[in-house]
Amino acid sequence: MGAEEIVWDDRGLAPAIVQDADSGQVLMLAWVDAEALRRTLESRTTWFWSRSREDYWNKGATSGNTQDVVEVRYDCDADAVLMLVRPHGPACHTGETSCFFRSIEGDGAAAS
Amino acid sequence: MGAEEIVWDDRGLAPAIVQDADSGQVLMLAWVDAEALRRTLESRTTWFWSRSREDYWNKGATSGNTQDVVEVRYDCDADAVLMLVRPHGPACHTGETSCFFRSIEGDGAAAS
Repeated sequence: MGAEEIVWDDRGLAPAIVQDADSGQVLMLAWVDAEALRRTLESRTTWFWSRSREDYWNKGATSGNTQDVVEVRYDCDADAVLMLVRPHGPACHTGETSCFFRSIEGDGAAAS
Repeated sequence: MGAEEIVWDDRGLAPAIVQDADSGQVLMLAWVDAEALRRTLESRTTWFWSRSREDYWNKGATSGNTQDVVEVRYDCDADAVLMLVRPHGPACHTGETSCFFRSIEGDGAAAS
């Protein structure tokens, strides 16, 4: 099984969940196309497609908060991927460890 | 902060990551619209929008493998949600605990 198994949506993309391989914390969700996934597997760091900037980005290339890729999995219908990583710093541009730091119900400062 | 904060895509959807609240295992990725999210928050069980069937589905309604919702979070740009759940049975229709049971590189039988 390989990257060629992935079923891309009509934009050529699939959602990529990024999870801390050690703590299990879900860090972020971003998007990959075939090329971003290829770069991720080759470099063993996370590469995504930015839908707003319409360009590839290597997570942490500017901030230094890179993510080393331990494993990439995909789901039963092959249209979503899960990247297990070891992060060098916070995933979120706000400085939070995870981008999912807010709770829909609660005080807006959910524990991790 | 509430469900009204969510930024829906051009189909009115957002990806929803489902994670086991206790083990931290990522179980599945599905899609919600405003109504599916409302039903999830109200019933405290996971509701999604099926893009293929174009209908709502309550996870486990048929199989019995329901998911009790502990908390719903959303990410920094509010276009993805994370549901922390206590599952009653496997998430995957194959019988696997998680839909992400295959590794892109490896032997196709990745450990959980």
